Amino acid sequence: MIDFMTNLDMNYEKVYNVIKEVKEELRPTKEELEKAYELYDRIKEIIQRALKDLNYEYKVSLEGSLAKGTCIRGDIDLDIFILIKHGKMDNKWIEVNILGKIQNALREVEGAEVVKKYASHPYLELIYDDLRADIVPAYWASKINEIKTAVDRTPFHTMYVKSRITSEVQRDEVRLLKKFFKGINVYGAEIKVEGFSGYLCELLIIKYGSFINTLKNVSIWRPHTVVVVDDEVKIDEKNILKLFPDAPLIVPDPVDPRRTRTFLREPTKEFFYPKRVSFSINCLRDILRLSERRMYLLLYDIVSGTSPDVLWGELRRVANRLVNILKTFDFEVIDYRLWSDEVSTAIIALELFNDELPKYKIHEGPPIAKLLNSDKFFNKYINDVYSFGPWFKENGRIYVVRRRKFSKLIDVLNHVRGQLNAKHVRLTDVLTIESIPHKLRNNKEFNYWLTEVILKLPFWLSSKYEPMLRVFCRDK
Amino acid sequence: MIDFMTNLDMNYEKVYNVIKEVKEELRPTKEELEKAYELYDRIKEIIQRALKDLNYEYKVSLEGSLAKGTCIRGDIDLDIFILIKHGKMDNKWIEVNILGKIQNALREVEGAEVVKKYASHPYLELIYDDLRADIVPAYWASKINEIKTAVDRTPFHTMYVKSRITSEVQRDEVRLLKKFFKGINVYGAEIKVEGFSGYLCELLIIKYGSFINTLKNVSIWRPHTVVVVDDEVKIDEKNILKLFPDAPLIVPDPVDPRRTRTFLREPTKEFFYPKRVSFSINCLRDILRLSERRMYLLLYDIVSGTSPDVLWGELRRVANRLVNILKTFDFEVIDYRLWSDEVSTAIIALELFNDELPKYKIHEGPPIAKLLNSDKFFNKYINDVYSFGPWFKENGRIYVVRRRKFSKLIDVLNHVRGQLNAKHVRLTDVLTIESIPHKLRNNKEFNYWLTEVILKLPFWLSSKYEPMLRVFCRDK
Repeated sequence: MIDFMTNLDMNYEKVYNVIKEVKEELRPTKEELEKAYELYDRIKEIIQRALKDLNYEYKVSLEGSLAKGTCIRGDIDLDIFILIKHGKMDNKWIEVNILGKIQNALREVEGAEVVKKYASHPYLELIYDDLRADIVPAYWASKINEIKTAVDRTPFHTMYVKSRITSEVQRDEVRLLKKFFKGINVYGAEIKVEGFSGYLCELLIIKYGSFINTLKNVSIWRPHTVVVVDDEVKIDEKNILKLFPDAPLIVPDPVDPRRTRTFLREPTKEFFYPKRVSFSINCLRDILRLSERRMYLLLYDIVSGTSPDVLWGELRRVANRLVNILKTFDFEVIDYRLWSDEVSTAIIALELFNDELPKYKIHEGPPIAKLLNSDKFFNKYINDVYSFGPWFKENGRIYVVRRRKFSKLIDVLNHVRGQLNAKHVRLTDVLTIESIPHKLRNNKEFNYWLTEVILKLPFWLSSKYEPMLRVFCRDK
Repeated sequence: MIDFMTNLDMNYEKVYNVIKEVKEELRPTKEELEKAYELYDRIKEIIQRALKDLNYEYKVSLEGSLAKGTCIRGDIDLDIFILIKHGKMDNKWIEVNILGKIQNALREVEGAEVVKKYASHPYLELIYDDLRADIVPAYWASKINEIKTAVDRTPFHTMYVKSRITSEVQRDEVRLLKKFFKGINVYGAEIKVEGFSGYLCELLIIKYGSFINTLKNVSIWRPHTVVVVDDEVKIDEKNILKLFPDAPLIVPDPVDPRRTRTFLREPTKEFFYPKRVSFSINCLRDILRLSERRMYLLLYDIVSGTSPDVLWGELRRVANRLVNILKTFDFEVIDYRLWSDEVSTAIIALELFNDELPKYKIHEGPPIAKLLNSDKFFNKYINDVYSFGPWFKENGRIYVVRRRKFSKLIDVLNHVRGQLNAKHVRLTDVLTIESIPHKLRNNKEFNYWLTEVILKLPFWLSSKYEPMLRVFCRDK
């Protein structure tokens, strides 16, 4: 019935072989799991010592993929939650009563680096060897409807997944899906992005049973699909649903369906271990020139300590506003993309065919039958020697050819500069591809991103990269 | 209530004075009327002699403005109809049995020039001193529903107007209106344009009573207004309406309302005696350049003997088709205008801001949710190294940046050349303002028209011409 589904049946053995091989490579080794649990025990012990005088009931709890057994070899993070039965935990309170004390106490872990971070809550990040541990204070809710902030939900997620994903077979499927999705969810911008997109993968395996079945379904998602994860269990497991009302999940934006479809059509291991490809800035500049496109890079400073959610939200709002403003000045933006190191620098890239319009434009007036309006229009332009007309067209409206207020994009940008800032991002410069400063030029992540913006292809479609390089770039 | 109506009341004396003066200037002199009637008598006598052997009942009849008493001083035309009771008058028959004989006989009028002309019928034009006489054979219908072609209707028009316009006071109002409208109805393209637009003026005076009242009403017309001329007489004069079913008149396109409104606001004699203004071609070229507009002039040969109705109809159809074709190739035409000498040469002028587009364009694909379509789109462009993408936007559709088929207007014109001809007009050349040939450059009518096209102002708005000349042109 559907082209690529037929294809899948023909490809079954190929898909199966690829999957089998990758599964084994993703399963964590016994050694690394032991090492992670050792670290957890040590941190837990330190926390309990540091908080021995705390006047509220609390517990230290391992959450996330390690607790659920769904973490991937060589990529193990610890989510250590301090669940506290105290309803008035504002950020100040958390820093003074929890984080300050723990941070101090954690100094005894030799070779570990501990930094304070901010999402919707302040929390600590501890890096030790190749392990990373997030230490997150949260409100200890006994029921899901008692939670105070989003992070308080995590223990319920862990509990739910552990109750539904119980075999190593299922865990293999989760890991496949996580690895496959990893390159994509770069803009998750949820608190602890990785955690959420991991949870999403687990819910999908609960819902669809296997990696392949998930791909089949995801590839036909429409935007704003509602995936009800637990529809099968509604009848016989009512209590579980009451405990976990998050289980019916709304997935607002589909995972790029091109990737899943392409994998089902041509399964290779590269989909799990994608190569990132980038072109040199000079080559990208040539591509823009040859395809007669212009690019403007709006460079932003980020207010220090801004959380990723806030940052991406503001950037997206500013970019949308800008595209709409430019439209009113007749500048059509082909595409805009966002980039940030999430610390100090953010960029809005605008891509257009023209950054300069003709000095004059056609301007539609009212219908001639609307007496007062058309008289006003007429009198205005008949006294303006810089306009041509007014004349009227067969559709019964008056028209005039008149001067544009701004014919250069850069003039519009300067004119609306005040509207291009937000609370946590400040516009500092407007660059073109020719004027990208050294520091950015040498930023590998920026380069990957810029390549993707200009070629308009995600890196996993790298098959098209090589021929494009031959067609457009002189320096290779 | 309405701005310019209030204005009119304030201007009443001014308007009245202008009108009074112009009325006297428009009334024909006794001498020129006598001279015209003498010519009519002489031609009638010659026709009757030439047709003495005609086997069908016929009469020679004076029609048109001279018969109705609505002609204007210094501008008297004779409409002499030969009404024949013979149903099978094809063009061949008319030429052999009527026009041939009369043309021969008319040689006895010394100093007169007689030429055969074609509208929907062949007819003769005789020029003698400053008088012109059209000699038109037509079918002699006793009732309006017996007419065979449009010309046969004229005697009924004459009869109707004579029955309704009976005083010199009314005739003054008709003459004012005719003179006021004259500059506008250049595209009447009816058989004997002048006759029709004269008849239109007469009907309007019958309907609205006076020149001023007509202007007031015309200035608020919408396109496709239906003016029922004789609605007042429906009840008590049923018989007249049966005789003259043309009396309820449909006026498909409004007279330019800007002119009437401007006159009512600032009445001057110049509205009746407009100066035509033209700029030099070099100056017009500068104006186009400075306002960053491009102009293409499609030059046409007209098949000899083509009637104006057919010519203008075909030109308009070709121009509309062309504008639509250009739109599909993303070329937006600001305005197009038609010109012709109605004999050998016609022109379609296209005005655009750009005659060259970027080599690439954004191309919208299907919604990602339409599996088969979006897969097809995806596979097509993923294998095309000259396209960028496909990527998908927040609206759920796939997009690609791809090469245009044509980026130059001239290439599109060459590509669709076959569709730019019609039966009676053949495209011979595509000119720009720089390449207008000498013959056209020196054609005064063409120059008036081109000035109007580029300034986008009718000549009666010449108040704006002088300042524009100062702003845009170097050579004056």
